[in-house]
Amino acid sequence: MRAVVIRESGGPEVLELREVPRPEPGPGEAVVRVAASGLNRADLLQRRGRYPVPPGYPEDIPGLELAGTVESVGEGVTSVAVGDAVMGILGGGGYAELAMSPADTLVPIPEGIEAVTAGAIPEVYMTAFDAAFLQEGLSAGETLLVHAVGSGVGTAALQLARRIEAKVIGTSRTPEKLERAQGLGLEHAVLADEHWPGKVLEITDGRGVDVILDLVGGPYLDGNQKVVASRGRHIVVGVPGGAEGVLNLRALMGRRASIRGTVLRARPLPEKIELARAFARDVLPGFGAGELSPVIDRVFSAEEAAEAHARMEANQNFGKILLEW
Amino acid sequence: MRAVVIRESGGPEVLELREVPRPEPGPGEAVVRVAASGLNRADLLQRRGRYPVPPGYPEDIPGLELAGTVESVGEGVTSVAVGDAVMGILGGGGYAELAMSPADTLVPIPEGIEAVTAGAIPEVYMTAFDAAFLQEGLSAGETLLVHAVGSGVGTAALQLARRIEAKVIGTSRTPEKLERAQGLGLEHAVLADEHWPGKVLEITDGRGVDVILDLVGGPYLDGNQKVVASRGRHIVVGVPGGAEGVLNLRALMGRRASIRGTVLRARPLPEKIELARAFARDVLPGFGAGELSPVIDRVFSAEEAAEAHARMEANQNFGKILLEW
Repeated sequence: MRAVVIRESGGPEVLELREVPRPEPGPGEAVVRVAASGLNRADLLQRRGRYPVPPGYPEDIPGLELAGTVESVGEGVTSVAVGDAVMGILGGGGYAELAMSPADTLVPIPEGIEAVTAGAIPEVYMTAFDAAFLQEGLSAGETLLVHAVGSGVGTAALQLARRIEAKVIGTSRTPEKLERAQGLGLEHAVLADEHWPGKVLEITDGRGVDVILDLVGGPYLDGNQKVVASRGRHIVVGVPGGAEGVLNLRALMGRRASIRGTVLRARPLPEKIELARAFARDVLPGFGAGELSPVIDRVFSAEEAAEAHARMEANQNFGKILLEW
Repeated sequence: MRAVVIRESGGPEVLELREVPRPEPGPGEAVVRVAASGLNRADLLQRRGRYPVPPGYPEDIPGLELAGTVESVGEGVTSVAVGDAVMGILGGGGYAELAMSPADTLVPIPEGIEAVTAGAIPEVYMTAFDAAFLQEGLSAGETLLVHAVGSGVGTAALQLARRIEAKVIGTSRTPEKLERAQGLGLEHAVLADEHWPGKVLEITDGRGVDVILDLVGGPYLDGNQKVVASRGRHIVVGVPGGAEGVLNLRALMGRRASIRGTVLRARPLPEKIELARAFARDVLPGFGAGELSPVIDRVFSAEEAAEAHARMEANQNFGKILLEW
C-alpha cells in the first residue's frame, strides 16, 4: 500500500509518497481503507521532528485522523464490521491508504456525509466538543470566546456552540477569516488587535465571557484574564502564539475562574473510547440535521502532501485541509 | 449588646469593644448568641480598610464565623430553632455578642464539641472541604500538597485528607510549624526553602501531586508547575505571599492540569447554603468520630481583640485564634 512518509526531519519537501507494508489488525483493532486524511498542526511539528509519536504508531507516517471504510478487523472486535463507513482520531499513521485504529475509537460517518468530507470532522469537532462542552460545561445562554475562530477547531466550536444557543465571540488577526466566520453564523467578530479585550467587554456589557477556547496561548493571556467572567473557564488547546504569560492569582480568586490545559493525542485509550462514545451520542446527530457542516479549505491528492503542508504552514487555510486517497 | 468595632482604618489598636444596637432577624435569618468568634486574615485586611464587606453586613464589625446558640429567628425559618447549638460562616458582624446569619447557612455544633471550640471549625474546615473535595475532587489514594500546612485551613485540609486516606505533603517556612503538623499526622513535611519542588518530586517518585491547596500564591507558582501531576488540580485559596507569577501554558497542556481561584465570602447565598448542607452531611460526622479535631492556637477574651489581631498579624499562631464572649 502507499503512504506519505517523512524521509527525514525538515520542511514540506521531506514528505514522500511510497510503498510500505500493509498494517494488520491486532486484537481490538481495525484497519481502515482511507478515503481522506485530515491535516493537523501537530503533523507539521512531527515532520520537523518536534512531536513525539505515542507507542504503537509508525514514527514516520503522520496523520491523526481519517475517514473511510473498515477493511479488516482483529480478534474480539464487535463495535465495527468490515464495510462500515467510519471516521476517527488516531495516534498516527493516518496519511496512508490503509491505517490501523483501535476499533472502539471509530465512530460512524453520519448519514448524508461523503467519506472524503468526513475526513474533516474527527479532530476538530472532537477537540472543540471535548474542551468546551465535556470539560468546561458550556451551556445554553452562556458566552463562548473563540480565539482563532477561522481555524478548524474554531469553526467547529462556533457551530457546536450555536447549536445549543450559546453566544459566540470570535477573534482572528485576519479580517477575511472573520468575514468567512460571519458567513458561518458568527454574531460577534473581533479583530485581534491590541483593543480586543475592550471590545469583548463591550459586547458582554462588561460581564465578560463564560468559556474561553484558546488556540493562541501566551500573547492573549493578559487579555483573557481581563475578559473572563465570574466563574469563567479558560481552556488552552494550542499555543502557536507562544507558551508563557503573567498570571494574576488574586484576580483568578476574585473571579473564581480557572485555566486548564488539554491535549487529545497523548490520552490513554480508555479515555479516547469514552470521548468517541460521547461524541457519537451528542454530536453526530447534528450533522444529519444540518446544524453542523464540516468546513473544508481544500482537498489535495496524496501526491500533493508537500503542497498541502506548505499551505497550512503559511496559515492560508480557512477550515480543514484534506489528503484524498 | 457589645461588639468589637473598627473605629477607623489602621492597626490592631483601632479595635474597640463597645455597645451597639442588637441585630433583629429578618425573614429567613437567625440571630445567634455568640460563644466564640474565629479570627481570619480577611479581618486584618478589613480593619486596614482593604476588604470590601458584602451588602447587608455591618461595615465596622468584622467577623466571618461564629459558634453559639440561636437567640431568635425571623419569619419562615424552619432549619434552626431558638436554643439550637450552631456554627457557621457569615458575611461579617461576627465579633459581637449577638450576630445575624442567614438561617440556612448555619450547621449544628457536632456532639461532644464545646461551643467555644466550635468557633474554630466553620471557616477553615469549610474552605478546605470546598476547595480540595467539592471543587477539586480529591479522592482516596491521591496526593495532596498543602502549602502553609500550619495555617488554620492547612491543618483542616490535613485532617480531612487523612480521613479519606489521601497522602499529604505539607510545606511551611517554619520548622516548628512542620513539627506540630507532624504531631497532627502529617507524613511528609517539607521546609519551604528553594529546594521544596525537588523534595516534593522525590516524595512522589517523580509523579507529582494530584491536588495543590495553595495558601501562599505567586512565589510558589513556578514550583507548583514543576510538581503538579498529570491531570493535577491547583486551587488558590489565598495569596499572602504575592499575586503574580509566570505561567507556562504549554506545560499546562502537556499535564492536562488546571489552576483555579476560589473565595467563600463573596459567594451568592444559595451557593453558601449548598456548601453548608454538603458540609453537614460529609464532614460533621468526622468530629464525633474523633477523626477531625479543631486546632486552636489561643482563646482571647473579647476585650483582647487588639492583642488577638497582633498575634495573627505577626504570623505567630499555629491553628485558630478565637475571641470568647
